[in-house]
Amino acid sequence: MITLASDFGSAYPAAMKGVLLQRTDARLVDIAHDLPRQDVRAAAFWCRETLPHFPPAVHLVVVDPGVGTERDALVVRVGDHALVGPDNGVLLPAARRIAKWDDDEPAIECFVYEYDDPVSTTFHGRDVFAPMAAAVHEVGVGAVESLDGVAPVDRFSPSASPTSVVDCRFPEATVDHDTATARGEVLVVDDFGNAITNVPGSFLGGREGETVNVNDVSAAVATAFADVAPGERLVTVGSHGYVECDVNRDRGDEAFGLVPGDEVVLAG
Amino acid sequence: MITLASDFGSAYPAAMKGVLLQRTDARLVDIAHDLPRQDVRAAAFWCRETLPHFPPAVHLVVVDPGVGTERDALVVRVGDHALVGPDNGVLLPAARRIAKWDDDEPAIECFVYEYDDPVSTTFHGRDVFAPMAAAVHEVGVGAVESLDGVAPVDRFSPSASPTSVVDCRFPEATVDHDTATARGEVLVVDDFGNAITNVPGSFLGGREGETVNVNDVSAAVATAFADVAPGERLVTVGSHGYVECDVNRDRGDEAFGLVPGDEVVLAG
Amino acid sequence: MITLASDFGSAYPAAMKGVLLQRTDARLVDIAHDLPRQDVRAAAFWCRETLPHFPPAVHLVVVDPGVGTERDALVVRVGDHALVGPDNGVLLPAARRIAKWDDDEPAIECFVYEYDDPVSTTFHGRDVFAPMAAAVHEVGVGAVESLDGVAPVDRFSPSASPTSVVDCRFPEATVDHDTATARGEVLVVDDFGNAITNVPGSFLGGREGETVNVNDVSAAVATAFADVAPGERLVTVGSHGYVECDVNRDRGDEAFGLVPGDEVVLAG
Repeated sequence: MITLASDFGSAYPAAMKGVLLQRTDARLVDIAHDLPRQDVRAAAFWCRETLPHFPPAVHLVVVDPGVGTERDALVVRVGDHALVGPDNGVLLPAARRIAKWDDDEPAIECFVYEYDDPVSTTFHGRDVFAPMAAAVHEVGVGAVESLDGVAPVDRFSPSASPTSVVDCRFPEATVDHDTATARGEVLVVDDFGNAITNVPGSFLGGREGETVNVNDVSAAVATAFADVAPGERLVTVGSHGYVECDVNRDRGDEAFGLVPGDEVVLAG
Repeated sequence: MITLASDFGSAYPAAMKGVLLQRTDARLVDIAHDLPRQDVRAAAFWCRETLPHFPPAVHLVVVDPGVGTERDALVVRVGDHALVGPDNGVLLPAARRIAKWDDDEPAIECFVYEYDDPVSTTFHGRDVFAPMAAAVHEVGVGAVESLDGVAPVDRFSPSASPTSVVDCRFPEATVDHDTATARGEVLVVDDFGNAITNVPGSFLGGREGETVNVNDVSAAVATAFADVAPGERLVTVGSHGYVECDVNRDRGDEAFGLVPGDEVVLAG
Repeated sequence: MITLASDFGSAYPAAMKGVLLQRTDARLVDIAHDLPRQDVRAAAFWCRETLPHFPPAVHLVVVDPGVGTERDALVVRVGDHALVGPDNGVLLPAARRIAKWDDDEPAIECFVYEYDDPVSTTFHGRDVFAPMAAAVHEVGVGAVESLDGVAPVDRFSPSASPTSVVDCRFPEATVDHDTATARGEVLVVDDFGNAITNVPGSFLGGREGETVNVNDVSAAVATAFADVAPGERLVTVGSHGYVECDVNRDRGDEAFGLVPGDEVVLAG
């Protein structure tokens, strides 16, 4: 199985699929191809929230603002999964979560691969990463190092930091239980307009039915969208485990005036 | 085979696919994941227009404004097909059409299933419905009742109404042949901007080349978009069998000033 | 394997998939369903850039502004590939490139097929082309002519023109090396906002680091987006082999003021 995630929009992912299917009969599963453009952190977030749900697979992830520059091409192996993409951090949050969900908590092993001058300088998804993902799939995740041009460059435990590849970490919120205040930021906004913060859901524990202020905007603490009237603001523990700022049947980002990266202060 | 339909936009459906593929090797087929947000009637319409074309399958449909509330989770069996989703009516129009297209016109059998407290209160697609769809697929549609926690709650013929599950019916237009007038409403607007009404296509029978008024806006009766010049309004019998208000190479909804739910009066 | 490309947006392609899967177990691969609406040339471009990457397959392409009129329905065979769609030129650029990439450079063979009055006059993707694509897949590309209602109508070498089916050719740019000037047009704009011209990439050869004027707007000649600062204009050789007018991390079409069909003059 090979999963595909990119910010390529329409048609370009099909060229990658053609290249893959020239080389493998693997099942292909689309994750998303409209990830926020050239936004490595957002892509890393969505990959972390989706890829670990899959059975062992090769995960092709191409969000690559550095395409055509000197940035390396990586294979990241974690247990029976492999992630293939640019060395810009986009692969690591998913790799860490895959490791964490595995009883053995395997190490994260990173390999660079040398690629010939590709056909294009702007579409390494088609010319570099798709052929590599197919090669990894065909040789098997356990035998990555046997591929020509592949060399190990890093190996670290999921809770540690890499030494030679680019990392991606999400900022952590601070929670002050005495004052019932949390200070964090908006990580991403989803397609519903829900503003997903980095404040742990536990901050809202036991407050259902109360209200909290989000940057001085009041909202009900709810467990379901339908707990408030259509058009009303709510904060809830989202499916990612974080506090989300939502509106029942409308967009939370607009109602709260939030975009990714904004600071959010939640106060009891 | 498992089909997937939702209003989840991007990335969230991939989490469902991961959950499914952890549990089954079934072929997965996307119906659409950009169904109008939390619009049960529109989702029911599009499911009715697409799912009955499929061979026997498990159809996972998650448009679920009541997620996290007390609404039940349903499996609806109709012949060799099963539909899995929330008890809000979204499954029934497709089930009725599947029954109607089956020579045996099988009964519609509804089952509720008890689910453990899911991981999230806002993403039952991932935490409740996808695992259930995989379970139904693996046990087989004919053996739904053998699954733990599954209990029959309703059974009715396609032309009847359920007694204990939520139904969804589309409004019916009235046609007065003496005055050549039809009164109905816009059911949905498609991605082309075609405004699809509930007026039966037969209303236009034999009028090709004439004009009709749609709420006092005149339009040609045509059998093909290209029967009128680009940018010109037309009414035609759409692929759903209803009268559509269209524009050749542009959006009908804007040219006619129509949105879903609007009343339309067609007069000869 | 059957690939699917259309301008149908959401949900309608699912009806085609249901029809296909009633008739075949073939692997289905989506190319794109949000091709520019009813824009035959743009669809032909994207099919040419994607379909030839695939292993032998049946390619279903439905961008069909003439649906419901007298235009023919075609099967185009080229080597082990078949393309199925309307006779409006949309299939031919991909067919030519498939032939060109094949060592044998096979001829392009066109067949029309007679279809019964379909269920709809507006959705031949579902009612005409999907059943035909399934039939071609099941009988085998080599045996197209054995299908009922199928008749050969044209056969020509990839560099020649058809005599009885509709062709689609992209305009060619003129390059004057003495004055270092190229005159061409914008073929398409991709989802990134990159304005893809028909000027051959070789025009930029050896000029990396210099600037050129695009219709009197100055831009750096670069090999990677990241060679210029975010928000800055660049021209580069895109993955299609043509000169593209781009902006690093933003939309080139807006920065250069270009839409498909616009003339572009590149001057050294």
